[in-house]
Amino acid sequence: MFIKGCRMMKISRVIMMNKFRISGILQSSKNVQAIDNNCKGVRTYTWIEKLEDFHREKMKAVRFSSADLGSLYINEGEQVPEPDQNEVRIKVFATAINRADTIQRRGRYNPPPGATDILGLEAAGIIDKLGPGCPDSLAVGQRVMSLLSGGGNAEFVVANSALVMPIPAHLSMVKAAAIPEVWLTAFQLLHFIGKVSPSDTVLVHAGASGVGTAAVQLVKQVGAKAIVSAGSQEKIDFAVSLGASAGVNYKEGSLADKVMAITEGQGVNLILDPVGASMFDDNMKMITMDGRWILYGLMGGTQANLDMGKILGKRITLTGTTLRSRSLEYRGRLIKEFSSLALPLFETGTFQPVIDRVLPFSEIKEAHTLMEGNKNKGKIVLELQKEESGTDKQEL
Amino acid sequence: MFIKGCRMMKISRVIMMNKFRISGILQSSKNVQAIDNNCKGVRTYTWIEKLEDFHREKMKAVRFSSADLGSLYINEGEQVPEPDQNEVRIKVFATAINRADTIQRRGRYNPPPGATDILGLEAAGIIDKLGPGCPDSLAVGQRVMSLLSGGGNAEFVVANSALVMPIPAHLSMVKAAAIPEVWLTAFQLLHFIGKVSPSDTVLVHAGASGVGTAAVQLVKQVGAKAIVSAGSQEKIDFAVSLGASAGVNYKEGSLADKVMAITEGQGVNLILDPVGASMFDDNMKMITMDGRWILYGLMGGTQANLDMGKILGKRITLTGTTLRSRSLEYRGRLIKEFSSLALPLFETGTFQPVIDRVLPFSEIKEAHTLMEGNKNKGKIVLELQKEESGTDKQEL
Repeated sequence: MFIKGCRMMKISRVIMMNKFRISGILQSSKNVQAIDNNCKGVRTYTWIEKLEDFHREKMKAVRFSSADLGSLYINEGEQVPEPDQNEVRIKVFATAINRADTIQRRGRYNPPPGATDILGLEAAGIIDKLGPGCPDSLAVGQRVMSLLSGGGNAEFVVANSALVMPIPAHLSMVKAAAIPEVWLTAFQLLHFIGKVSPSDTVLVHAGASGVGTAAVQLVKQVGAKAIVSAGSQEKIDFAVSLGASAGVNYKEGSLADKVMAITEGQGVNLILDPVGASMFDDNMKMITMDGRWILYGLMGGTQANLDMGKILGKRITLTGTTLRSRSLEYRGRLIKEFSSLALPLFETGTFQPVIDRVLPFSEIKEAHTLMEGNKNKGKIVLELQKEESGTDKQEL
Repeated sequence: MFIKGCRMMKISRVIMMNKFRISGILQSSKNVQAIDNNCKGVRTYTWIEKLEDFHREKMKAVRFSSADLGSLYINEGEQVPEPDQNEVRIKVFATAINRADTIQRRGRYNPPPGATDILGLEAAGIIDKLGPGCPDSLAVGQRVMSLLSGGGNAEFVVANSALVMPIPAHLSMVKAAAIPEVWLTAFQLLHFIGKVSPSDTVLVHAGASGVGTAAVQLVKQVGAKAIVSAGSQEKIDFAVSLGASAGVNYKEGSLADKVMAITEGQGVNLILDPVGASMFDDNMKMITMDGRWILYGLMGGTQANLDMGKILGKRITLTGTTLRSRSLEYRGRLIKEFSSLALPLFETGTFQPVIDRVLPFSEIKEAHTLMEGNKNKGKIVLELQKEESGTDKQEL
């Protein structure tokens, strides 16, 4: 990375750090050329305008010292991460909270090997540095959002280039930050695993959650029918406003009986289940023959009494899935398909990231409190930096 | 169906029975033409040489009056069934016993709606009558084997033409009768559901059973690795002789621990499970990340304690499946793929139907006793009629 106006020595140091050596500097343009040690050719780097952003080597990032919510803090002395092979560094403008963050804080969801301990599974911002080997489609200065194995709740984060998506035109950083985790999860559940088709009736548990609101829109878009479960009429109404055909309050009476009534005794053939044990018997009751039941969370506990005769008799497929632990290849493939099939529908306004509220970065404790209270409809976003007024995107 | 040399009156009667009326009789050829009552056009029927087979209107078939094994009997006064639209009638030379037969006898596996109560899920024989609408590829006199919804334990059975396969050259009726149910089940488990690939390690429970011995051969053929479980060293040795790489006696110590040792701590990524509850904890322990676990029977009971955290953490897919209850379209598609991919390998001798023993039709009680004793390695076949010496097939 090269900084306009910085000294030659500084440039050399940065280049050496990246295992490149200088072949020439084009002072007249915004570019610097360098040749890598392995003679893989000349690379051209874009200069960055904001000198101060790149001279800082320390950054703010969210850490925690115990399971307790009060132990969350923003460490101001974090090392700014360096992008490795095929990685980009993103200057983060907005990031979002996921249930996995709160579970990780409670010590029950460790980051995958090699991932940072800093919280945050997604971010939106501007590419400020490209590691070696990144594809030509990515450039410094580009507005991007990314799925992360961690580290998004920070001023800078490195992301694998395969997990980075361009932010759809007209979408703000705040809205973009609300997309990667929940939309890619919902897309994975419905398209990669559930193979949703127009004839499906899909039960979307927690229909007003981040994944729930994305799933309802994705189900509607393929022409299938979504029924949601939620804990209040307000949440149900909200899910219906997004395209759900009906909703059931799981706090009032038998969920399965109500769903069977709504479906005129047919039941549902695809269940998106972030709940687990507490909904187990209801799910088993209302799932149809050949039903697909996708477990992606355990908010309602883990221990269930399984009647295998029902699995056999109804030819049920029960699949557990998570996104974070998937191979890079899998996540890259997911992002590629999502970018091709779904991202254009954000451009047109057909898909809307659903945001419950936007908090300043400093309000990390409040963000976790809201998430753990299950009060939110859609995403809780943390804003780190506003886009310059000249580059602010017009909202749809 | 029209019988050479029979009286006109007889022909009329048979035609009326089939809701057709005669439009003309071509005495000079082996054909009779008839027009159906719904004026769907003229149909041509082939005359049959063996008069005696068609003058009989009663046949022998296996019935039972209670769950008790002793209640099994051969009813000699059964009506010979008539093939309906898209059906063929098969004169049965050999049929085989399945566990489903014994479970049906015990009242816990009713035939699907519309199917006969006569036992028997498969048969091999000769087509002796074509119902209307059968494809040109089928002809009276053809040696065929068929998957059935029931009725195979009888002298005649009707089968949907989509479920009929030609018997590979050189394969006897007895061997052919041992193919449909277990090979199509194993093929479904491995190819339609399990999507077996060469890198898989497959645990084949009950590796010396009918489905087990077919599965071991199918696994080997794709280049994957099969590990079997069985209740004796003799059965294990037998499965290894068919291509299994190892076997574990489930009666001796921890099955999961032994499989983990055999796989050097890796575990198995595909499990074929006809057992259910009694193997549940072992399966959960030895299945890998992204493991596919296919339940197709409940020999070991139905009630299990499920830790949903393991389903999620290992991203397990647990699928229940049966063959008999599947739609005709599904079974037809299965048979089409099996015929294309697997049947040629019976011609070459790569695949061998495994037969434990051949009993005369009258020994139906003995056949159920053997099946329920789990003593058999491979299929128990009932022979109804030997092929004429002139048409006997040379065994491979």
